[in-house]
Amino acid sequence: MSGFKARYDEYAAQVELELERLLPLPREDWPESSRPKALAQAMRYSLLSGGKRLRPVLLLAAYRTLREDLAPALPFAAAVEMIHAYSLIHDDLPAMDNDDLRRGQPTSHRAFGEATAILAGDALLNLAFETMLGSGLPRACQAARIIAEKAGAQGMIAGQMADILSEGRSPDPALVRYIHLRKTACLLTAPVMAGLTLSDAGQGMLEAGETYGRELGLAFQITDDLLDLSGTPEQTGKSGGRDAALGKMTWPAAVGFDKARADASAAVDKAVLAAEGFGHQAPFFRSLALSLLERVR
Amino acid sequence: MSGFKARYDEYAAQVELELERLLPLPREDWPESSRPKALAQAMRYSLLSGGKRLRPVLLLAAYRTLREDLAPALPFAAAVEMIHAYSLIHDDLPAMDNDDLRRGQPTSHRAFGEATAILAGDALLNLAFETMLGSGLPRACQAARIIAEKAGAQGMIAGQMADILSEGRSPDPALVRYIHLRKTACLLTAPVMAGLTLSDAGQGMLEAGETYGRELGLAFQITDDLLDLSGTPEQTGKSGGRDAALGKMTWPAAVGFDKARADASAAVDKAVLAAEGFGHQAPFFRSLALSLLERVR
Repeated sequence: MSGFKARYDEYAAQVELELERLLPLPREDWPESSRPKALAQAMRYSLLSGGKRLRPVLLLAAYRTLREDLAPALPFAAAVEMIHAYSLIHDDLPAMDNDDLRRGQPTSHRAFGEATAILAGDALLNLAFETMLGSGLPRACQAARIIAEKAGAQGMIAGQMADILSEGRSPDPALVRYIHLRKTACLLTAPVMAGLTLSDAGQGMLEAGETYGRELGLAFQITDDLLDLSGTPEQTGKSGGRDAALGKMTWPAAVGFDKARADASAAVDKAVLAAEGFGHQAPFFRSLALSLLERVR
Repeated sequence: MSGFKARYDEYAAQVELELERLLPLPREDWPESSRPKALAQAMRYSLLSGGKRLRPVLLLAAYRTLREDLAPALPFAAAVEMIHAYSLIHDDLPAMDNDDLRRGQPTSHRAFGEATAILAGDALLNLAFETMLGSGLPRACQAARIIAEKAGAQGMIAGQMADILSEGRSPDPALVRYIHLRKTACLLTAPVMAGLTLSDAGQGMLEAGETYGRELGLAFQITDDLLDLSGTPEQTGKSGGRDAALGKMTWPAAVGFDKARADASAAVDKAVLAAEGFGHQAPFFRSLALSLLERVR
């Protein structure tokens, strides 16, 4: 497990450098610079404000199953984090979850105003595609397509829409699962499958990647729901009971606390099983899935 | 000119069918369907609500310079219209231009609420990339990259940001030009260059395309500003004097009404000159540029 932690931190550190490289702060404001400084500042604020970098780490770890040198995959890894950051900015908006804090800092619209926050989100989504398509990798188009599908109207955005539409309704396990699979699992499956695609993995490995991402996503969201119920603000970085305050449909609310804990364990077990498909990277993916359960222990 | 009109309408009609094909309404609501019906409805509302289809027509006309069969380029043409539609949805939001009407209909957030409007915009941008990357065209990746760059934080979004930041400030020609080049011209240049790229055009033609799109964009925005000052709601589809009410920096406000009219003419002249680079499609591109001036005659 300690080897896992070191490897994870090594991946995350490379992602951090790549993000900084891809989004430098312009020295001049417009019209001298091609990018208004306020826009770049808001993009950097959300993208470079810490976070676990789980999605880009998944992409790099998947790419590593068949490739030694990580460097070519770094733009793609950064792009997935841009999509994650955009989704958080838009999710936090007053018309959506109306959150004031994210990772202990004011949310984008609290720091920069709503208009800038909306545009910074748009710009990060767009920059993700610019970055992937500019990477020059032989299978960039296919990998970017996977990410687009998982992030889109039948993937992550469908989950966000369903999440908002179902607020205040009585919890229904089928709907909660629909939401979790899309809102959370899609953007964990996407980097695993994109990383494998970029490394030219075969169909069997891609199927293992899809299962792994799905189960990791379910486990991740259920443990998140459990933490929101029982965790301290120090553990979660946000105020507790937020889901209940918003009338969110959570898994514990749908099936009960004990069943939710058991389901999180079962999803981790399935992810651990799927991790066997990742060759010499199997131990890393296994440890990553197991580490989720430590959050709610 | 009448041949031009018939050709334009023929292109636009094909775009209309392609948009309908790419975004069908789901029959079931979630969790049965993979896409929440409310999201699909909002996406369709903005995408299929008419409009001149100028951007996709430009893409098809550019593709036709070197290709006979338009069919392979249709998904790309539709994708550019999706990006245009998303930008209008987000632009109309209360935090941005706070518009109630668009093409004589309630804006997306008035019809569906703000949360759905934000997500429908996000989903249309994302679907544009899904569509382009799924088109299977040999040069899809390069063409999509051009569109991403022109639509992004150094292109259209930079223009929108600058437009909002400059509201209420005294008009400065350099800033107004910065805004018009990005907010308007970038998304006219993008389809011309993407269409040429998809048809495998050479460097000379691409340069003509860049000039044409830029000058068409400037002429388009200046005539739009002039119409906002002098046009009737019937001509413009929106309430007159909207720019002044929002404190927008317009070209007539920066340089005067007469100079603005002369500048629109000069930009059209430059576009007409650049149109010579489009081979047998030159007459179409020439007529299109000239048709802009009719709006303010």
